[in-house]
Formats: sequence, structure tokens, C-alpha cells
Amino acid sequence: MKIEHPYLMFLGDVPDALAAKTATGVVDWRKDWCTGQLRLPGCAADTGLPDISIAEAKEKGTKTMVVGAVNAGGRLPDHWVASIVEALDAGLDVASGLHVRLGSIPEIKEAADRNGCNLFDVRQNTETFATGKGTKRSGKRILAVGTDCSVGKKYTALAMDKAMNDRGYKSSFCATGQTGVLISGRGVALDAVIADFISGAAEWISPATGEDQWQIIEGQGSLFHPSFAGVTLGLLHGSQPDGFIVCHEPTRTTMRGVPTPLPTVQQVIDLTIQCGQLTNPDIRCIGIAVNTSALGEEEAKAYLAKVSEDHNGLPATDPVRFGMENVVDRVASEFGAP
Amino acid sequence: MKIEHPYLMFLGDVPDALAAKTATGVVDWRKDWCTGQLRLPGCAADTGLPDISIAEAKEKGTKTMVVGAVNAGGRLPDHWVASIVEALDAGLDVASGLHVRLGSIPEIKEAADRNGCNLFDVRQNTETFATGKGTKRSGKRILAVGTDCSVGKKYTALAMDKAMNDRGYKSSFCATGQTGVLISGRGVALDAVIADFISGAAEWISPATGEDQWQIIEGQGSLFHPSFAGVTLGLLHGSQPDGFIVCHEPTRTTMRGVPTPLPTVQQVIDLTIQCGQLTNPDIRCIGIAVNTSALGEEEAKAYLAKVSEDHNGLPATDPVRFGMENVVDRVASEFGAP
Repeated sequence: MKIEHPYLMFLGDVPDALAAKTATGVVDWRKDWCTGQLRLPGCAADTGLPDISIAEAKEKGTKTMVVGAVNAGGRLPDHWVASIVEALDAGLDVASGLHVRLGSIPEIKEAADRNGCNLFDVRQNTETFATGKGTKRSGKRILAVGTDCSVGKKYTALAMDKAMNDRGYKSSFCATGQTGVLISGRGVALDAVIADFISGAAEWISPATGEDQWQIIEGQGSLFHPSFAGVTLGLLHGSQPDGFIVCHEPTRTTMRGVPTPLPTVQQVIDLTIQCGQLTNPDIRCIGIAVNTSALGEEEAKAYLAKVSEDHNGLPATDPVRFGMENVVDRVASEFGAP
Repeated sequence: MKIEHPYLMFLGDVPDALAAKTATGVVDWRKDWCTGQLRLPGCAADTGLPDISIAEAKEKGTKTMVVGAVNAGGRLPDHWVASIVEALDAGLDVASGLHVRLGSIPEIKEAADRNGCNLFDVRQNTETFATGKGTKRSGKRILAVGTDCSVGKKYTALAMDKAMNDRGYKSSFCATGQTGVLISGRGVALDAVIADFISGAAEWISPATGEDQWQIIEGQGSLFHPSFAGVTLGLLHGSQPDGFIVCHEPTRTTMRGVPTPLPTVQQVIDLTIQCGQLTNPDIRCIGIAVNTSALGEEEAKAYLAKVSEDHNGLPATDPVRFGMENVVDRVASEFGAP
């Protein structure tokens, strides 16, 4: 799936900012791809983009309206359907991160057909994949892994991609989750793929490329999460990373949604190397990304210094606070300058 | 899905025995569930069951016709459709291991609706699962794992289930693949589940049960197979085995379908324990099942003795040749008599 930008961000009338976090995530990383936001009366979310109508969005060259909010219950309310049909009638494609398929709603399906427009359901998967091959592909790859779900793997991969490009590397971000797909305009929500094809889909997401090209791959789940480790392992095998960054949230004591205790960063490093060697014998850890938001600035620096010291001098950072410069330094020292 | 027996095995007109291996697998283990076979002119496969008509099958109390053969190309030929419609018109359910969904063929769908009969596509998954919880369930579980795909995990699990029951344990077989589902009448083809729900489906397949009950769970793939390891890990986490049996085919040098070298039995033991401890801290290897068909009887015995010696005295057997008695002995010594 290739979603064309510029985007108009549709927020509906959601009652709080959290319900629009998909839109916020896209705007955080791709503000220059967004022409504006469309909000219905009563909407309490705000991405900071100008409020514009569908007609104005069309004039500004918008190609796709992104449904970047989720209603309570995950349903698509009738009054959102009207806005989506209006966008299609204006000739825009529509992309959605909702659970419900846009095409399963007759008015939307008919409007898309009538106008020859595309519907993208980024939570679903329509692509057909081969099973994973496990053979080495050209190019270099970095994967974000984690001690848990929702510990900043997407943010870390995007920050790393930006920092790599800023330093002169040829780098691209490879999305494996729904918000990531909207941020990059392509990719696959890996957790929606049929189990037999997880590593095959990961190979498709990070295909052979130029030897001087870097692919920075969004991680999913954790090898230590009892719900999602299968996805994590298939992604590790399929993406065959040369380097990986461990993401960690130090205030968490149990894994998201289950009573399982969090593994240590060292356990994640060890098991990722052990399993990752199957498809890349040279796999290595290149950094540790920690969410230090619970700490003051000086405490955070001291904490990161300790994390680095405890892990053989691996660079440790908080991507939000301190950027990825020290991890890019590590790439330069391990793999060479751009 | 709960498929009712007795079964009538439908073999179509396949040109060789291999094309009917699903039927053969079912008859090997559940001959007493089968009333006969239905073959079309030119069929070169034979399960050894009596050839009977659909009317005769109905008289014998048959509940389900099983399409236990695959045509070249995996298609469902038109002249097979007529037999399936005839079975439905006789009031039989129909179960199929084909890739194509029975209900996607209008004549079959209409005949099923007309007669109020069920269609079972055992390669597909229609069940909705929760994500895996990772919490301990009551009962005891044994999982077959492997150095590769197609190394006898299903056979080993079925043989173990039979040997356990013969020795007075309360044991049941839990299917995770299509032939296994037909053999047990229930279960899920785990490789057809959406990636997010692998371990959740494995938990559903082997639910909480009485403390004296054993579930012997069919394995899938290998933690070392670059195409399918995600399924294997999700199954390991979801099935939370107390004991596992490593299946191995010693003449193989690369993993099925890929150029990756085979791991050693010891590597499989170590990684299975390491990963399996996440949901069952007491997980242990209870035996090694080796396909010794390339060796003579005495050579095979000597080889198995060496395998046992090399792995701390773990019982080693060839389930086909020597049965699972020594592995059941190990269960008795580790977990107690029935």
C-alpha cells in the first residue's frame, strides 16, 4: 500500500486528545505532509494544524484524508461517514486506522467506486506475502526492539532515521504498525498478517536495497511478551538487522496488559542476538533508548550514564530529550562514516 | 470448530498416494472413526478403507465427509463439487483441508444452506481469539518441538497421547495443524491465525483442565526456522508446556524450503527452555524423537543410545519403530504415576 500525501487529518468529534493519537503521531513526524485538520463540532482534540474544509483541502492539493481518531468503542459513527463520503466526492483517497474496514460501509464503498478513489485500512492487511526466505539481502538495517510493548520503538526508529539522514547517511524508515504506515505512506501492520507470513512480510517491508542504504525498522512487541513474542521473533528474523536498539521504560514493573514481569535490558540484548543470528550472524546491539520522563534532567543524565556503564559502554539516550546522536556515533564507529 | 465423526474419506481422482496424505494421516490414527472411502474413477490413492457410496456411508451413520486429498494446483475440480453437493444433500457435513474455502463455491454454499449442514475449512480459521494472557492454567501439558518443519511432531504427539492413555494417564491430543484437526475433530490450524493472536489461539487450544489431565500438543515449525519461528514461539508461550519432546530428522542438512543449516538438538533444547520459561518456569525436556528410517534396526538402536548419552540420559526413541514407552517412563519419574 502506497498512501499519497499531502494529508488532511480528520479528527471527528472525539472527546479528548488521546483519541486522536494517530493523527498526533503523524503530525509530529510529517507536519510538512499535512495541509490541515478537519474537526466536527465538539471535537476536543487539536493537532495544531489549521482547521480547513474538504474544499479548502482539495484546493491546497491534498491527496488523502486520514481518519486519525478513534471513537469510543472503535465504531465509525454515522456523522463521520458523511465527512468521509464528502472527501471521496471531492476526489480524495481516504486512509483509516480504525478496526472497521472502510469498504465494509456501503455508502463509503459506493462513494469510492463512484469517484475512482482508494480506501486504505492501515490496521488491516490486503497484501499477499511469500513465506520468509532467511537469505541475506543487500543494504544495512537497524531494528528497534523493546523490553515491552509501547516503550517508544516507533519514536526511536523515526528519531534514528532522522538523525541518520541529518548526518549524511541514506536512511529510510520502515513501518510495521498502523501509525507508522501513515507516517511513511507505506508498510504493513505486521500484527494483522497471517501467522505463516510474519517473517515474509518483514522481508517485504525491508527489501534488498543499495549497499549504502540504511533501513530503520519500527519494532513490535517484545521477545518477552507472552501475547506478542511470535510477531517480534518473525520481525527479527525477517528484518535481519545489522544493529538493534533496545527501548525501555524503567518505571514499568509488569508487561503491558499481562502480569508478566519486565525483562532486563541485558536479557533483551542477549536473546535478540541469540535469535537474530539465525538470519544475520553479525547482529549487534548499537544503543539503548530509555524513556526518562519520570526523572529531572540531571537525574536522567546520571541514569543514562549508569545504563551505559552497566552495558559495556553501549550508548544510552532518551530520544525525546537528548536525540540519537550518540547512537549514530556508534553506527559511524562500527559501520563507517556515510 | 467441532467436526463430528464417523467420517467418509473423499479421495477424488488424485493421481498418487501423496496427494491423499491428509486422508492417510486421519485413517492411520482414527480408522475406527471412518466408515469408508469414496473414490472417483481413476483415483490412484487408497487408504485401505472399504469403497462405499454416499448413500451407504449415510446408512452406516457417517456424519461428515472429509475431503482428504489435494488436486494438482490446490484447486477444487468441478467433478469434485458434484460429490460434495451430493454429500450435503444426503445430510452430511463436509470438512476440507484445501486452500479454497468450501463456502466460496456457490453450489456448495447453497447445498449446505439448503440442508442445514456445516462446512469446515480446517486450513482456514474462523474462530475469534483473545490475545495471549501468559498466566498459568491448571492441568499438565507436553509440546512436540523440532529442529525443523516436517520432522514428525504430529506423529510424535499422537503416539505420545496414545502411549499415555495406554499407561493409564488421562491424556488428550491438541491439534495445531489441518490434519491434526481432522484427527481430533477440533483444534486450529495455527499458521492461519492472525499474527497478534498466535499465543492466544494456543491458549484456546490447550485450555485449563483437571490437574490430573494431560494435553499433548502438536508442534509447528521450529524456533530456528526463518520462515515460521514466530508461530513456534507463540505456540510455545501459549501452550506453556511442562515437558517438551524434541523431534529430529538426522539426514537433513538444511531446513525445509530454505538454505539455513539445521540446529542441533541441544540448541533446540536450550532455546526452548530459555523462551518457554516465560510462561512456565518449570519447563523441561522429557525426550528426543528421531526419525531413524535411514538406518537398520541395530544401527538405529545404537544411534538412539548415543543420542540419549549425548543429552544427559534423556530418553531417545523413534516413535514409529520403538514407540514412546521410554518417554512415558520419564513422565512417570518426573511427574508421578497416573
